[in-house]
Amino acid sequence: MIERLNEYIDHTLLKPNAKQADFELLCAEARLYKFKAVCVNPYRVKYAASQLQGSGVLVATVVGFPLGASYTSAKVGETMMAIDDGADEIDMVINISALIDSQTMVVERDIERIVQVAGRRPVKVIIETDALTNAQKVQASLLCIDAGAAMVKTSTGFFAGGKGATVEDVQLIKRTLDSKPGGDKLGIKASGGIPDRAGAEALIAAGATRLGTSRGVAIITGAKSDAKTY
Amino acid sequence: MIERLNEYIDHTLLKPNAKQADFELLCAEARLYKFKAVCVNPYRVKYAASQLQGSGVLVATVVGFPLGASYTSAKVGETMMAIDDGADEIDMVINISALIDSQTMVVERDIERIVQVAGRRPVKVIIETDALTNAQKVQASLLCIDAGAAMVKTSTGFFAGGKGATVEDVQLIKRTLDSKPGGDKLGIKASGGIPDRAGAEALIAAGATRLGTSRGVAIITGAKSDAKTY
Repeated sequence: MIERLNEYIDHTLLKPNAKQADFELLCAEARLYKFKAVCVNPYRVKYAASQLQGSGVLVATVVGFPLGASYTSAKVGETMMAIDDGADEIDMVINISALIDSQTMVVERDIERIVQVAGRRPVKVIIETDALTNAQKVQASLLCIDAGAAMVKTSTGFFAGGKGATVEDVQLIKRTLDSKPGGDKLGIKASGGIPDRAGAEALIAAGATRLGTSRGVAIITGAKSDAKTY
Repeated sequence: MIERLNEYIDHTLLKPNAKQADFELLCAEARLYKFKAVCVNPYRVKYAASQLQGSGVLVATVVGFPLGASYTSAKVGETMMAIDDGADEIDMVINISALIDSQTMVVERDIERIVQVAGRRPVKVIIETDALTNAQKVQASLLCIDAGAAMVKTSTGFFAGGKGATVEDVQLIKRTLDSKPGGDKLGIKASGGIPDRAGAEALIAAGATRLGTSRGVAIITGAKSDAKTY
């Protein structure tokens, strides 16, 4: 049984059709349960930051989300605007298509530029495990180290037919990070499809240092939830 | 039986894990079948434009895709970069969340800014019908007229549990456009989930002037296809 499980959780709401009232609730829950952060789309960063001021709960947002297939400059612009609006952490999606095409310099430079503009703010790099072979997961994790990422994050939660975070993938990322000098400084965010407390604890046991889920309250309280996790 | 059905089709590949070889095939098919356009993510616009030079096939790309929940300025930047890379048409996603919250000025201004920077290039505005009530679909379509859009587009193909384009929604959008002065100048792009030639023809009969599908070849040739449509 892991103590203070709440402090691992990025309380997440990325549905494009979420209403302001949903974000109000998200932020109130995050304060109540003392989650580590909320994770919202760029358009809602300013609102979340205003709601969470002084609470100790961080505001994370997503960049190039969920496809990762836009321009590096577009991701850079999004990052800068989000920081202006009060984002404390940046969850960016890699250029998945470039990684699969072995354009590793494109992928690394894409991450590096976001890390640069994010400055002291941690950048979590979503590698979208469901889209990759194990060899590609390893390669993506190594690129995250080289590019100065704070964490490797498994999934967007939006990949068609995807499973999201698995114990096996977290273990693979952990082994990869531990294999390279400096890699052990990076955290791992397991995200997507985390079903319940037992699932959350298994991911932490495998090496996850952060959990991205829309089921945070159910995970903490043990309530049943049918919410789809993003 | 609609003639030249091929000329209605935006041959679409938006999967984040598509490879360069997939885009090569997409462009070759678009040339062969003389589709109206290909529709690709920003990162692949330059490649598609190079492959399709002189072919008469247009290059469409997506902006703020598929959630629509980023900053207007980020969408503007994406649009400018895509045009630089050779995009002929821009398919943007509205700020769905703002529409649902009745922040109509936010939604309209978001569209207007993209129309401005797109200049002579048509802007198709994705309203994501699966996320909206009928009243919201009507409102979104009216905003498209006011903001200078070239087309109302039904769906991203990425909405969780969504059906994509339906005959009923196309009819509703058509009636809405016809109800307002200037509205009949706008086209309608039906996208997402178009199963086959009969489905395509039903959407055109309902008022669609463009079809967005990853099943274009199967629709034209009558072949069976299991491809998920985006």
